[in-house]
Amino acid sequence: MNINTEKIRQFSSQLLMKVNVPQDEAEIITEVLLEADLREIHSHGFLRLPIYVERIQKGLITNKVNLNAEQENPVLALLDGNYGAGQVVAYKAMEKSIEKAEESGIGLVAVKNSNHFGITAYYSLMAAKQDKIGIVISNVAPLMPAIGGAEKVIGNNPISIAAPSGEGDPIVLDMALSNTAFGKILFAKEKNQPIPEGWGVDAKGVPTTNPDDVINGGFLSPVGGPKGFGLALMAEILTGVLSGGHFSKMIPSMYDVNQKQSISHFMLTIDIKQLIPLEIYYSSVKQLVSYIRDSKKAEGTDHIYLPGEIEFLKEKRNKEAGVPMEEKTFNSLNELARTLGVEELTV
Amino acid sequence: MNINTEKIRQFSSQLLMKVNVPQDEAEIITEVLLEADLREIHSHGFLRLPIYVERIQKGLITNKVNLNAEQENPVLALLDGNYGAGQVVAYKAMEKSIEKAEESGIGLVAVKNSNHFGITAYYSLMAAKQDKIGIVISNVAPLMPAIGGAEKVIGNNPISIAAPSGEGDPIVLDMALSNTAFGKILFAKEKNQPIPEGWGVDAKGVPTTNPDDVINGGFLSPVGGPKGFGLALMAEILTGVLSGGHFSKMIPSMYDVNQKQSISHFMLTIDIKQLIPLEIYYSSVKQLVSYIRDSKKAEGTDHIYLPGEIEFLKEKRNKEAGVPMEEKTFNSLNELARTLGVEELTV
Repeated sequence: MNINTEKIRQFSSQLLMKVNVPQDEAEIITEVLLEADLREIHSHGFLRLPIYVERIQKGLITNKVNLNAEQENPVLALLDGNYGAGQVVAYKAMEKSIEKAEESGIGLVAVKNSNHFGITAYYSLMAAKQDKIGIVISNVAPLMPAIGGAEKVIGNNPISIAAPSGEGDPIVLDMALSNTAFGKILFAKEKNQPIPEGWGVDAKGVPTTNPDDVINGGFLSPVGGPKGFGLALMAEILTGVLSGGHFSKMIPSMYDVNQKQSISHFMLTIDIKQLIPLEIYYSSVKQLVSYIRDSKKAEGTDHIYLPGEIEFLKEKRNKEAGVPMEEKTFNSLNELARTLGVEELTV
Repeated sequence: MNINTEKIRQFSSQLLMKVNVPQDEAEIITEVLLEADLREIHSHGFLRLPIYVERIQKGLITNKVNLNAEQENPVLALLDGNYGAGQVVAYKAMEKSIEKAEESGIGLVAVKNSNHFGITAYYSLMAAKQDKIGIVISNVAPLMPAIGGAEKVIGNNPISIAAPSGEGDPIVLDMALSNTAFGKILFAKEKNQPIPEGWGVDAKGVPTTNPDDVINGGFLSPVGGPKGFGLALMAEILTGVLSGGHFSKMIPSMYDVNQKQSISHFMLTIDIKQLIPLEIYYSSVKQLVSYIRDSKKAEGTDHIYLPGEIEFLKEKRNKEAGVPMEEKTFNSLNELARTLGVEELTV
């Protein structure tokens, strides 16, 4: 089913305001969730609203953001998110990163004591929409073992880099550092198919191509083995360690509703025009895009996609058609609406 | 065979000085090559000295570096390397990045018109040795097709991130963005073995597990497919595009001795102590390392290695034992020595 974007906007903000989130913050959270669903990253869309609300109700996420700068100079800031909603904390932190870049050429904001912030590309794109390059990293609860390990010690920490491209959409990479998502392992099992080498290991840490081995006590593997593990570890250092926050096994799952999460973010903005004139940058990007897009195609390929391009196509389509939503998500949102006394969502 | 480190240092500097490289620059180039061989990244060690010398003799690499700052403020600089030796250009650019970070908290130096600079970790480690985090990226000549492409359009652009760890060696990731090195494809062929899925595609861009398909007109693939391709493309933007330099198909191979290369680098340094006290940083890194190292081992694993750890072990061993060198490399170096009238290298 598809939900009108205005309807879901109103609905989501109403729900959040019912648990005492101020309107402006409810709207930020809603926009980030909406963007995920429009881009069809449904795992980070309105599907998560019930758990966010539950965490807010339990005081694990504070209902109102209170950002505190522990360190600040013209190019750097260290912010304590004080357990506010990740979307609001990250949005404000990225605004600061962009301001600093505008003033000084580059801006780095490290954030600790935040929460899950949804899709990483939302924040890197804030920079790209202002003729700047944004690099955003977050840690998450540990999900993968080390190479040669058999215990979760590192998150599949997402990294997003967004670069403006002039007339077209920005080029935006947004990736988690596991080889694949857990959902794809479940999907392979459903279809009774083996999984490719490198997707996961069994409970003893041994590589496997049997989805059951991963599902029953096994683990997802980092993308590209040691390369992805190394990148995930450096991401953990750039987020949890560099902010003086939490990392690795200190971070509980967001579905553990007895503990606060303490998530850290790294938000870097580079103001292109302070290095080279924007017209040179944009003409180079155009040339690079043409080298890629117009290169010889592989047998069976019609079009070469740039990072983020497919998501922008989906977003455009879904803005017209409405937000695609699974019935299960729709029902759980309306169950929550009934509990909180908010008018139910309709198709 | 193993060569005494002092002997090879002298020898390499003598060779470079014979083609009019000033002594201090010859020593920098030598140190970077030596470090590669000590860490057993032989593809980036003294094996490359003959081609560097040939390019210097032909004027494709200038014998003396002339670095020119086209833009500069307290946190950013854009340097024109004017086709100087990549090692010297990158060394001086990284010094500037570190100085800026020391002054302001963060330093970003973009470099254009440089050359192949050897191992990326050499420069990121310069920051880590000064209690700072270093992030270094370079572009290289295109080597891989896009996802769905059948033509080289993007380099396996190396990325290195180094973070100091206090008492121990720094944690240092240094990776190229191809799934594997071409040498490993050749090795599989020699052993008559198939290559894993994801290592390469054939001449038509179709994924293959037959090493011959890659060797005969095929291509290496990015690590993790679209993730590695996306990262390589963003690396190309952060280097060649952001510096106003060359990128993608504009860059010829370093073995094409009729054309100058124009390589770009991105060198970012973060001064940790301007965000959090160093003692907090180091105690967090220690805790993180312990979470990783002391985690439950996979069946058959004795020790979990951190990024860069194996290379530091090799370096320590080889500093004692001497630089490991293939006879072929040894002979080609001595052939060059005879041509230039430099005393030959001995074991």
